[in-house]
Amino acid sequence: MREGRGKVTITEIAREAGVSVPTVSRVVNGRSDVAPGTRARVEDLLHQHGYRRKPAVSRTRAALLDLVFNDLDSPWAVEIIRGVEEVAHAAGIGTVVSAIHNRSGDARQWMTNLRARASDGVVLVTSVLEPVLHEELRRLGVPLVVIDPAGSPTLDVPTVGATNWAGGMAATEHLLRLGHRRIGFVAGPPRLLCSRARLHGYRAALDRAGIAVDASLIVPGDFYQESGFTGCNALLDLAEPPTALFAASDQMAMGAVEALRRRGLRVPEDMSVVGFDDLPEVRWSAPPLTTVRQPLAEMGKLAVRTVLKLTRGEELDSPRVELATELVVRSSTAPVPAGRRGGGV
Amino acid sequence: MREGRGKVTITEIAREAGVSVPTVSRVVNGRSDVAPGTRARVEDLLHQHGYRRKPAVSRTRAALLDLVFNDLDSPWAVEIIRGVEEVAHAAGIGTVVSAIHNRSGDARQWMTNLRARASDGVVLVTSVLEPVLHEELRRLGVPLVVIDPAGSPTLDVPTVGATNWAGGMAATEHLLRLGHRRIGFVAGPPRLLCSRARLHGYRAALDRAGIAVDASLIVPGDFYQESGFTGCNALLDLAEPPTALFAASDQMAMGAVEALRRRGLRVPEDMSVVGFDDLPEVRWSAPPLTTVRQPLAEMGKLAVRTVLKLTRGEELDSPRVELATELVVRSSTAPVPAGRRGGGV
Repeated sequence: MREGRGKVTITEIAREAGVSVPTVSRVVNGRSDVAPGTRARVEDLLHQHGYRRKPAVSRTRAALLDLVFNDLDSPWAVEIIRGVEEVAHAAGIGTVVSAIHNRSGDARQWMTNLRARASDGVVLVTSVLEPVLHEELRRLGVPLVVIDPAGSPTLDVPTVGATNWAGGMAATEHLLRLGHRRIGFVAGPPRLLCSRARLHGYRAALDRAGIAVDASLIVPGDFYQESGFTGCNALLDLAEPPTALFAASDQMAMGAVEALRRRGLRVPEDMSVVGFDDLPEVRWSAPPLTTVRQPLAEMGKLAVRTVLKLTRGEELDSPRVELATELVVRSSTAPVPAGRRGGGV
Repeated sequence: MREGRGKVTITEIAREAGVSVPTVSRVVNGRSDVAPGTRARVEDLLHQHGYRRKPAVSRTRAALLDLVFNDLDSPWAVEIIRGVEEVAHAAGIGTVVSAIHNRSGDARQWMTNLRARASDGVVLVTSVLEPVLHEELRRLGVPLVVIDPAGSPTLDVPTVGATNWAGGMAATEHLLRLGHRRIGFVAGPPRLLCSRARLHGYRAALDRAGIAVDASLIVPGDFYQESGFTGCNALLDLAEPPTALFAASDQMAMGAVEALRRRGLRVPEDMSVVGFDDLPEVRWSAPPLTTVRQPLAEMGKLAVRTVLKLTRGEELDSPRVELATELVVRSSTAPVPAGRRGGGV
């Protein structure tokens, strides 16, 4: 007699699936030498019966954790890797880093590799997996935690994010307190939840200050430097340019600072600039950047701890956690000059 | 009868070690359920007889490659990870990223994890492993390739580097061509081979131009931004400050640019600045940085290809490869102003 979830045995699954016990064991252990049809049937039954795999760390194989990015092309990736590696390393777990480049083929290849190496958990960063891959992870019993979820996350995947909306509001309120009234915004990709949250934080701060949102002051970007450069130039070309600019990433803020420099405009004397992320290098940019700190390494650490809890079958305090962002004021923001209270450069 | 290296069988090793064949097999496959004394004896014999392990990719376990840094705290780490991951991913190999923080305990822990996960190869970045760990890797038959070797590498470890000496010379010659005669140098840590090579490249260019090296123009640094800031301030405080500055890393160059900005000095009008690395973000720093490009991602790719060759028992073209560095001229360097040909700011 079984008592609820987690009590089904491999023998029972084997009987029900009409296969041998070793075959079920091979599926459970993530080995690849099982026919795909058989594997699918066994995994369905395992899932259906709520079979609990053993804890990750076995005596014969070290535990692995997969950390998946879309692209490894930004200094913020290394911040997350640093946090993930620190906690995983201490637990004797190897961190396998992959990039799937938003390509279905790469994601599929990654999933094949993940199965073959029998990884014990997955931390996915701002990436979108096709539903079929989500389903496959679930069948394999591999816990998944998403850092900085790209879209509205599905109910059954725990996520670790940052308070992007509050951060967007804090950045904008900082500029408002300095007397700025025309504040430009260089946005991130609208498909990402964090971008939309930062934009809405910006809007909320303006609303609260009784300032109507001027759509011409919001320009698109993709988080990379060049789009900050282009976006800032577009704002400077307006009939009535802003006196301050909030870029939704540090990299875009650095692009904006360079656009201003090329026009002979000084930061912060001629234009205040605020970024988002607090990458280590913006402390030393010229000028050091006022920005919203996103605790990337801490987000990585928490994601690993959450995966470990799931691996041990423990309850989570909450499936959705947002770590606090924090405004860091440095030298790229200043009060609006008295003569330009009304607007432009 | 055995014919030279690589032909010994597991049966022979088992007989000689006085253990069972499965025990030798467990050692060969890197499993952890073998008594330490037995493992050491078997590994000695395997090494002594030049036993060749099977190629990395087996049917039951996916291949893994360990990528080891001292610290994951610099944007150049992500460049190397990107290159390593790309080639490894394409070969179906998982990239396990670790940091050992120059700490013996962390290195030892990493080695334990490496054994437990039976990793198929190691790429070590600017890190120093104790000889005992080198010996252990050799015994385990795990191929090792070092990127950017920290010291004079031992003869039997293949290395992938960059032409640091030539890069240091190219940066300095660029400044000489612009008319600079007093050129400051912010050095990297002297224990690192790449630092010493860049310094000697700087000296060689001055020698060639018939300019005596002024020791007061050479200040120490550690590759991080803050040391560039401090080093630049020290140079500016000289009785006769330089008109140009070459920093041995981009991060130090950014620190130097900020030190200049704080004193109200403009780059490049008042001081030319050259960096080293060509990190993606310096293209967008204010001003965009003239620097020496180090092909970090390509170095990572070549290191993985070299590990794969070693895994397959193939001959290497050369155990020491240096990829070319390249001077990238942007906006942080300019001719020395006519009035300051003789020197200071």
